[in-house]
Amino acid sequence: MGEGNRQTLRMIQNHIPLEIKEYPSGSQVYDWTIPQEWTIRDAWIKNSNGEKIVDFQKCNVHLVSYSAPVQGTFTFEELSPHLHFREDLAEAIPYRTSYYKRNWGFCLSYNDFKKYFHSGEKYEVFIDSEFTNGSLSIGEILLKGESDEEYLISTYICHPSLANDNLSGPVLTTFLIKELMSMKLKFSYRIIFIPETIGAIAYCSFNESIMKKIKSGMVITTVGGPGKFGYKKTFQDEHVLNAIVENVFQEKGVEDFITYPFDIHGSDERQYSSPGFRINTVTISKDRYYEYDYYHTSLDNLDFVNAEYISQTLELYLSLVTKIDKNIVYKSNYPHCEVMLSKHDLYPEIGGGILPQNSQWNELDIILWLLFYCDGTHDLFTISRLLSIPLEIIFQVALKLEEKKLIDRAKV
Amino acid sequence: MGEGNRQTLRMIQNHIPLEIKEYPSGSQVYDWTIPQEWTIRDAWIKNSNGEKIVDFQKCNVHLVSYSAPVQGTFTFEELSPHLHFREDLAEAIPYRTSYYKRNWGFCLSYNDFKKYFHSGEKYEVFIDSEFTNGSLSIGEILLKGESDEEYLISTYICHPSLANDNLSGPVLTTFLIKELMSMKLKFSYRIIFIPETIGAIAYCSFNESIMKKIKSGMVITTVGGPGKFGYKKTFQDEHVLNAIVENVFQEKGVEDFITYPFDIHGSDERQYSSPGFRINTVTISKDRYYEYDYYHTSLDNLDFVNAEYISQTLELYLSLVTKIDKNIVYKSNYPHCEVMLSKHDLYPEIGGGILPQNSQWNELDIILWLLFYCDGTHDLFTISRLLSIPLEIIFQVALKLEEKKLIDRAKV
Amino acid sequence: MGEGNRQTLRMIQNHIPLEIKEYPSGSQVYDWTIPQEWTIRDAWIKNSNGEKIVDFQKCNVHLVSYSAPVQGTFTFEELSPHLHFREDLAEAIPYRTSYYKRNWGFCLSYNDFKKYFHSGEKYEVFIDSEFTNGSLSIGEILLKGESDEEYLISTYICHPSLANDNLSGPVLTTFLIKELMSMKLKFSYRIIFIPETIGAIAYCSFNESIMKKIKSGMVITTVGGPGKFGYKKTFQDEHVLNAIVENVFQEKGVEDFITYPFDIHGSDERQYSSPGFRINTVTISKDRYYEYDYYHTSLDNLDFVNAEYISQTLELYLSLVTKIDKNIVYKSNYPHCEVMLSKHDLYPEIGGGILPQNSQWNELDIILWLLFYCDGTHDLFTISRLLSIPLEIIFQVALKLEEKKLIDRAKV
Repeated sequence: MGEGNRQTLRMIQNHIPLEIKEYPSGSQVYDWTIPQEWTIRDAWIKNSNGEKIVDFQKCNVHLVSYSAPVQGTFTFEELSPHLHFREDLAEAIPYRTSYYKRNWGFCLSYNDFKKYFHSGEKYEVFIDSEFTNGSLSIGEILLKGESDEEYLISTYICHPSLANDNLSGPVLTTFLIKELMSMKLKFSYRIIFIPETIGAIAYCSFNESIMKKIKSGMVITTVGGPGKFGYKKTFQDEHVLNAIVENVFQEKGVEDFITYPFDIHGSDERQYSSPGFRINTVTISKDRYYEYDYYHTSLDNLDFVNAEYISQTLELYLSLVTKIDKNIVYKSNYPHCEVMLSKHDLYPEIGGGILPQNSQWNELDIILWLLFYCDGTHDLFTISRLLSIPLEIIFQVALKLEEKKLIDRAKV
Repeated sequence: MGEGNRQTLRMIQNHIPLEIKEYPSGSQVYDWTIPQEWTIRDAWIKNSNGEKIVDFQKCNVHLVSYSAPVQGTFTFEELSPHLHFREDLAEAIPYRTSYYKRNWGFCLSYNDFKKYFHSGEKYEVFIDSEFTNGSLSIGEILLKGESDEEYLISTYICHPSLANDNLSGPVLTTFLIKELMSMKLKFSYRIIFIPETIGAIAYCSFNESIMKKIKSGMVITTVGGPGKFGYKKTFQDEHVLNAIVENVFQEKGVEDFITYPFDIHGSDERQYSSPGFRINTVTISKDRYYEYDYYHTSLDNLDFVNAEYISQTLELYLSLVTKIDKNIVYKSNYPHCEVMLSKHDLYPEIGGGILPQNSQWNELDIILWLLFYCDGTHDLFTISRLLSIPLEIIFQVALKLEEKKLIDRAKV
Repeated sequence: MGEGNRQTLRMIQNHIPLEIKEYPSGSQVYDWTIPQEWTIRDAWIKNSNGEKIVDFQKCNVHLVSYSAPVQGTFTFEELSPHLHFREDLAEAIPYRTSYYKRNWGFCLSYNDFKKYFHSGEKYEVFIDSEFTNGSLSIGEILLKGESDEEYLISTYICHPSLANDNLSGPVLTTFLIKELMSMKLKFSYRIIFIPETIGAIAYCSFNESIMKKIKSGMVITTVGGPGKFGYKKTFQDEHVLNAIVENVFQEKGVEDFITYPFDIHGSDERQYSSPGFRINTVTISKDRYYEYDYYHTSLDNLDFVNAEYISQTLELYLSLVTKIDKNIVYKSNYPHCEVMLSKHDLYPEIGGGILPQNSQWNELDIILWLLFYCDGTHDLFTISRLLSIPLEIIFQVALKLEEKKLIDRAKV
């Protein structure tokens, strides 16, 4: 929270018309209070020779986020509890925060720790930070579609210094939005860029009635690693969103993906799935958080993540949203008996049909099944599975029927 | 539609007290309009020698049904698009209609086509037909039972020149009605003889409130072929009607039957299953439409179909209706605790029980289970399956309990 | 019914503060009428030498319960229909009643029958019994817990002369109550000691509104035999009570138990499961009624049953009630988003957690899952199964959350 966050959001604004919203420090948001902003100007540790052996200016991961201001000289023994490193990953600087408990600390590689820190020595420590009332900044964009029914897309922006978790998330989301902006959408999409946890909670609290109407959604995170694709299921195992994701994997030829069951640990689906909202949200990832070695260390950097990986995952999300956008529930305007197809010019004539002439699918069959199923309870994806015909084909025919005013979108 | 239909209905009236109802040409019935009547007096094609080479008087399948009037001389090339034959079944005259698109044509065997029609020759064509305002005629009979709750039995009468599809349907239905008229029925049965599609749609439209209360039903068609028995399931796979049909097959020793899943193609279940009605209807067939070689040709005749086959299928339908008629939902009049059986004289004494003395079923058990299950939600067929005791046994005991006023029919 | 029953109840009052309630003879209770009391003073059969060859004073099983008064001399042939014995169990005196049909009879061993009764001889018969208006006596105790929601525990007291069926039932129940009285209960428990069938029916009738609110319950019978443990399922196969019983067996290491499906025969679950109440009740037994050789004979005595067996079954029932008592449905007071755990001092610190430090279960995980699931629809046993964590652990953590006012008991 603070100026860094706003910088991130402004950079994204260079690409998409993101609206920045401010929720003031001290606001009560459910069980939480929006904290003060944290301004950090400088931070270092010097050895007795006056050499900076840990320097925030060189790598901002060196400082425990939200560290309180400090100035003074410490013995090795006094300093030790404030130093964080990972013996198992000796060259990596771990990433740490102390958000809700006022504290301070430095993170460094185990190699540096062994090299620079020794019992009996003294160290000068300086942290020039400040806590001030301000606001929590979030970015929001609402892509309005034909229908007011909304899906949620959420990504977090709290530590973009790390590449896969979390820079890759807002990057992919930004490009996803650019793509969606060029499309004529059937549903509306509410997309938010927020600090994890407190940002999601604040957003829910300030937009409770909106959130209670959300159909379902996705949380975009850790999408750019070299590892396997995976997806975390929504809290309802049988929710259609999970089936659509698996359909995406299948169509894109991704056979070897990991299925993560819903878990109460994770990202902001924790908030959206809570009893008061119960929004089913799915996450497609590539090297998911918790699972890769460099997770929450300085090695989660641009050597680990690259544009090609992000682009591959973007393609999956784009396919996912495209399918969600076609998953309409219709209601027949002619519920009694069959429609007289010829009257509506619906007999597929040579060259005049909706589907291409050489389509493997029988257009007339699809029309008849759609008119049978469209009773306000079956979504198109479910119909597509019942008929073993791709959603895209079903959708194309449904659009024709809607245009002919034979079916209308149902309020669900 | 027309006088032919009325003749069919009048012939059925010789056997059962069918009521004939008329729905006028031009009536709007949902998405359809009832067409004009078609009167056909004569139709033929003569060759240049003046010989009738195709003659409606010899076989009425020769003329495309609903052909417009024609008189004139045509070259082979002009006539050709109006001639219909089947190369794959060279001796058969195909059956064709052009109901909603004004057109004309002749059907003939491929053998005749090769023999009589040659490029370069001229043909005299005569069709003496007429379209006039009139009415669509349907036959209806309501067999009133103890309860007003109705089942629907529907059969079609639009091209009785063909034997299995469709003469066998109304023949079986007529005999079924004769049997049912001799029985004391528990439920009511609404039985209709209609032209396929337009007749069903017109009936639904003119009787919408009745149709919305129908419990479920059957569509009787193609019941007299030499092939296998089969049944087409209702649109809800788990509907009790499907289980009852399978129970009929099992009891009658029919092991080798075909199960057709519900399909949007077929007969008038297409209308009854539509979103506005959602009536589950089942069809038991013997050589079902679409499936046999002679389907919709002049070879679907009385050499193909015979009384013995129809009689076999009739036996199945009779068993089906008999079971449906016993499938009552009861509600206990003594829902709290057990009934005092001795007070109601319900202890099966030697010789005084409901079931025969040597019955393999324990009458007392059935009484107790019935009083346990009869809560207005379990039908007797479901109870019979839960207890693995035939419906007929359960029914017999339930009747006794009803007579003793311990249970009453529940409004479902 | 009568003084004997009241003696039984008064003996139980020596151990627990049982309330005795009286329902007068002649009261209409649903389909039944509470009968008159039966007083029996003496009964015997003498042979022609004046020797008492059957003597009620020696064993009260000798007399058919509810026998009408008799005095007179009978030939062997006249007496024979009134004598009951079991050829297959020659030394056992069978137990018989003639409750609703006015009759009389004696029960004796087949050995005695062969020894003392011969054609051609005469016998003097004396039954000094009396029927008088009085009342049906039942014992009731309501153990009030934190919540008014009640479970039912029912046991019967109609023929305590027989040991497994039925003395063992009220004995176990009495000790169970003593145990429960020493506990702080979460739910309330309504425990009744009644004559089987008529007592249950009378209780239901006099307490209908109470019974309609019962959550579920157990019927305690035949718990002291040398044979196998078993349990009879509630009428809904998937009811949580069945799962809890199996959980009890598993935890207590009882692998070889018999599962009896729900049956309309049995004990007073017949009344409680009837359509008007539909109370799911379970029975854990050791040598269940119907199943053991000595069932309903004088050999079902204290040689067959012993305290150790009863104690083993008591342990199972105690475990069952203890689990039921923990099976609370909670509702989060913070349904929107996550709770801020640190604010409520819920981060398990070293030594300060709810679970022991070396617990194999992760306390934080349980807290988060509970806050996720506690929406007024999931009971703790179901949550424990979803998480594969023992109910007792889940309960302990839930109590902490309740104490912290994060969750409250839901009205179900």
